[in-house]
Amino acid sequence: MTPPVTLVALLHGPDQRGLVARVAGWIFSRQGNILHADQHRDKEAGVFFQRVEWEPALSRAAKGASRAAVVESEASAFTAFACGELQMQVRMADSAHRKRVAIFVSKADHCFHDLVLRWRAGDFTAEIVAVISNHANLADVTQGYNLPFYHIPVTAATKVDAEKRQLAILRESGAELVVLARYMQVLSADFLDAFAQPVINIHHSFLPAFAGGKPYHQAHARGVKLIGATAHYVTRVLDEGPIIHQGVAQVTHRHGVDDLIRYGRDLEKQVLAQAVRWHLENRVLVYGNKTVVFD
Amino acid sequence: MTPPVTLVALLHGPDQRGLVARVAGWIFSRQGNILHADQHRDKEAGVFFQRVEWEPALSRAAKGASRAAVVESEASAFTAFACGELQMQVRMADSAHRKRVAIFVSKADHCFHDLVLRWRAGDFTAEIVAVISNHANLADVTQGYNLPFYHIPVTAATKVDAEKRQLAILRESGAELVVLARYMQVLSADFLDAFAQPVINIHHSFLPAFAGGKPYHQAHARGVKLIGATAHYVTRVLDEGPIIHQGVAQVTHRHGVDDLIRYGRDLEKQVLAQAVRWHLENRVLVYGNKTVVFD
Amino acid sequence: MTPPVTLVALLHGPDQRGLVARVAGWIFSRQGNILHADQHRDKEAGVFFQRVEWEPALSRAAKGASRAAVVESEASAFTAFACGELQMQVRMADSAHRKRVAIFVSKADHCFHDLVLRWRAGDFTAEIVAVISNHANLADVTQGYNLPFYHIPVTAATKVDAEKRQLAILRESGAELVVLARYMQVLSADFLDAFAQPVINIHHSFLPAFAGGKPYHQAHARGVKLIGATAHYVTRVLDEGPIIHQGVAQVTHRHGVDDLIRYGRDLEKQVLAQAVRWHLENRVLVYGNKTVVFD
Amino acid sequence: MTPPVTLVALLHGPDQRGLVARVAGWIFSRQGNILHADQHRDKEAGVFFQRVEWEPALSRAAKGASRAAVVESEASAFTAFACGELQMQVRMADSAHRKRVAIFVSKADHCFHDLVLRWRAGDFTAEIVAVISNHANLADVTQGYNLPFYHIPVTAATKVDAEKRQLAILRESGAELVVLARYMQVLSADFLDAFAQPVINIHHSFLPAFAGGKPYHQAHARGVKLIGATAHYVTRVLDEGPIIHQGVAQVTHRHGVDDLIRYGRDLEKQVLAQAVRWHLENRVLVYGNKTVVFD
Repeated sequence: MTPPVTLVALLHGPDQRGLVARVAGWIFSRQGNILHADQHRDKEAGVFFQRVEWEPALSRAAKGASRAAVVESEASAFTAFACGELQMQVRMADSAHRKRVAIFVSKADHCFHDLVLRWRAGDFTAEIVAVISNHANLADVTQGYNLPFYHIPVTAATKVDAEKRQLAILRESGAELVVLARYMQVLSADFLDAFAQPVINIHHSFLPAFAGGKPYHQAHARGVKLIGATAHYVTRVLDEGPIIHQGVAQVTHRHGVDDLIRYGRDLEKQVLAQAVRWHLENRVLVYGNKTVVFD
Repeated sequence: MTPPVTLVALLHGPDQRGLVARVAGWIFSRQGNILHADQHRDKEAGVFFQRVEWEPALSRAAKGASRAAVVESEASAFTAFACGELQMQVRMADSAHRKRVAIFVSKADHCFHDLVLRWRAGDFTAEIVAVISNHANLADVTQGYNLPFYHIPVTAATKVDAEKRQLAILRESGAELVVLARYMQVLSADFLDAFAQPVINIHHSFLPAFAGGKPYHQAHARGVKLIGATAHYVTRVLDEGPIIHQGVAQVTHRHGVDDLIRYGRDLEKQVLAQAVRWHLENRVLVYGNKTVVFD
Repeated sequence: MTPPVTLVALLHGPDQRGLVARVAGWIFSRQGNILHADQHRDKEAGVFFQRVEWEPALSRAAKGASRAAVVESEASAFTAFACGELQMQVRMADSAHRKRVAIFVSKADHCFHDLVLRWRAGDFTAEIVAVISNHANLADVTQGYNLPFYHIPVTAATKVDAEKRQLAILRESGAELVVLARYMQVLSADFLDAFAQPVINIHHSFLPAFAGGKPYHQAHARGVKLIGATAHYVTRVLDEGPIIHQGVAQVTHRHGVDDLIRYGRDLEKQVLAQAVRWHLENRVLVYGNKTVVFD
Repeated sequence: MTPPVTLVALLHGPDQRGLVARVAGWIFSRQGNILHADQHRDKEAGVFFQRVEWEPALSRAAKGASRAAVVESEASAFTAFACGELQMQVRMADSAHRKRVAIFVSKADHCFHDLVLRWRAGDFTAEIVAVISNHANLADVTQGYNLPFYHIPVTAATKVDAEKRQLAILRESGAELVVLARYMQVLSADFLDAFAQPVINIHHSFLPAFAGGKPYHQAHARGVKLIGATAHYVTRVLDEGPIIHQGVAQVTHRHGVDDLIRYGRDLEKQVLAQAVRWHLENRVLVYGNKTVVFD
């Protein structure tokens, strides 16, 4: 069965009177049906944000038109309206589109298994198109999941080449999102520029505390009573990208570093999975170094 | 300074295409400015819910008109539109209106102090117009807060009379909301009918577990590892009204009944305060035996 | 490398002066070294509970003796002391013993994968000796984990026979614990009597609310703002056994039954895994219908 | 009624075999009764920590002796034993002793009211002996609570003098603990040296993130999805002292700085109250820059 055509628009721009009405009115005037609409105003910055999801009437009318043509035409029309009349920036998505996702992983496999199992349970509207690792240890299990595995070792000396190979795989597989599922390598600015698509990372700490390496060791040394995990978009500055989601767990003096790492694994899994899900559902709008999450 | 005129409408009714656009369009066509709009669909029941808050243009235009007249006229016009054209049920409120609240309390005073202190800190858009207790112990402290205190003892024999006196006070003080801040008496159906305004209760358990009396003793006897608190609207059926908010805390075998009660006090305070705040901000819409909370 | 010999004793019985000292003194007098000791008093019931873990000196002294012989002899000696002199009930365990665990599962596989992956990550001191399901769908993946899978369909007509086959497998595999990882069948009293070892279940609700079937549907119908999961030992009375652990998550009117089920899966995984871990580490002491968890 | 004599000892020192038994044995040999005993080993550092609470037999035997004399004599004897034979550091306390507490506060009054109301509800084994503020706004309400209020303004120019006056009040009132209930002034090293007793502060952030001023503004600017509060002992280095307790709350893009501040107030109240309670119950042992909390 063809899924019904529903579109999502993520809009933002200078606040002005009547934006909600004008967006809703545009959709209604074309006999579309709004399924969800959520908006936010950053009063200090004077910025208006909106996520609106609707079913265009075209999907019923133009029986002859292909699904793709309907989406294409409605999306262009709305983009023209939003950028032109409303002077807003807009990102459009087809709700039914299954984004193509590449997972980068190192030796630690808990986030990897968690993402794949959730995906197989139907939690993510996505295709996993590549699993890329700098270690070989997950090759068999990845193939057990019927997913393509690419072993690309990375050393200081080979990093430039390794990233080229990674980019080639991303290009060939049509990846639209990279998820760093505890991938312990820093991606270069060149890589990020060349990929030019979102990259989500899970940092095993509640940023901005304990940025950098070995955060559980840092947390233990400081004697904190809480540990956290942070999912964020990757930018050129390590651990400084827009935060999508954070979680925490209470700890005590009884917990050694090993316990923090073990509890942390649960946090990392949940926080990363939630952030990925929101991204795939087109619920996350980045502006400046922050996110608006329409959950 | 006169506060700006902003109105809130809480709407619900059968779902139909274009509701978001028609509501927004109506407001926009009168040069109003939507500040917040949030909606929800219960797909199973086919019901549409919306909370919309806007600044009517009248507040700028009709310089001569009183604030009250502007609110009155816009509210009537919108109600006519919503009930008539849209066939929706609607409840209108003036955002700046400080609801008149009566607090009912027994001996336990933690929720009482908590509500009053939050109110004094400016957390609630409300006036506390009466504190009514079946015990005298809070008379002095209530007067210390400059609030009117009414001591109305209640026994099985005097209950009918006591409720009459309570109703008289509510009527005279113009109360629009009763908050049962650990008031340990059950209100009769007659009382609820006569008051005919919302009553919020805090039940010291996560309903529906441990309804009825002495929930912490029940919880301890069952050996649960969590305790909770539930804020709900009061209906004729004890502890069965629509739930507004719930909270929980982890407990262990080390916690005796006294500890559960002590931890419970914190939960009760927070859960009740949050529910009252949402109610006062016109964020809670009741339908059937449930609530939609536009938070 | 042989693991060091460490023993755990779980004691309980009538409270009396000097119990802590007498237990510690007995161990010390035999040159043992206490690694952990934790105790609890139920003042109302007058019951004393203790978990003590120690390294017997014998492990250093009797070089000739086998590990098993050392454990055996120290455990018997302590049991004689605790039951005789102290008049306490005692359960002894070798800390290094990897308990033999059978997992029962139906179609829903999230708890199953979660347990197996945690076990492979080294979180559980255990061997998984059998995976038993009334459906065949997990046969391949279980074999992919190199674990023995037994498909035993269960219908009302075949239940008695099916339980006999299950018991035979448990006996042959030497299972010391059964974990019901969302196994949707009720075990008969006969089965429980015959197995005579602990059985841990995950109930997808915060008991005692929503006992019985389809708890997420019940929760949704009641309009609760929290959902929970409860891990408990199985007794003859459905959903009434001693609670080991409970977890909750906040939900809103936006969450349909499907969302509750999805959020619930995360809760179920974590709550069950934590309960199983505590059990395997000999941290759970059952008395009456409650547990003392020495965490 | 004279409360029963119970003593608490907080011990720590190099780990050695038999410590649990020797402490328990010492108490038992004098016919004392251990009520609670909890211990912890920092394996890396090789340090043993213990909190033991017991009822000395003397309290029953020496009918003639005053309560104070009994406590004094048992405490000295235990200290001699612990420091001498065991080579441990020890801090002794009389469980029934109501510590004398001074509260320092600035304009924000939520933690102040919270502490006083909990104290009046019997949650704290303490006497509040002084309320000291650099502002006069809480004078009346403090007197309403029948507590002594001292208004000591602080400017850069008068700080040295102001601290002298504060110290004089602490000395006269016999304060054994200072609680900084959102006191917005930094205490000088000289003050801390001269007072030479514990000072507990509530920092409105989960340290080490957002140390320093205006943490809610910092958090908002960074776009975090969690805010926190940290109760810690005050040391010479601002916001770097041993952490006693931390709490967090989830926030979203919808929360402006004002909302963070409002939610933060709840966190601050709870986290500070819990830390103060643990301290008053002699449950907190500081070592290095960390705490062991025997909860």
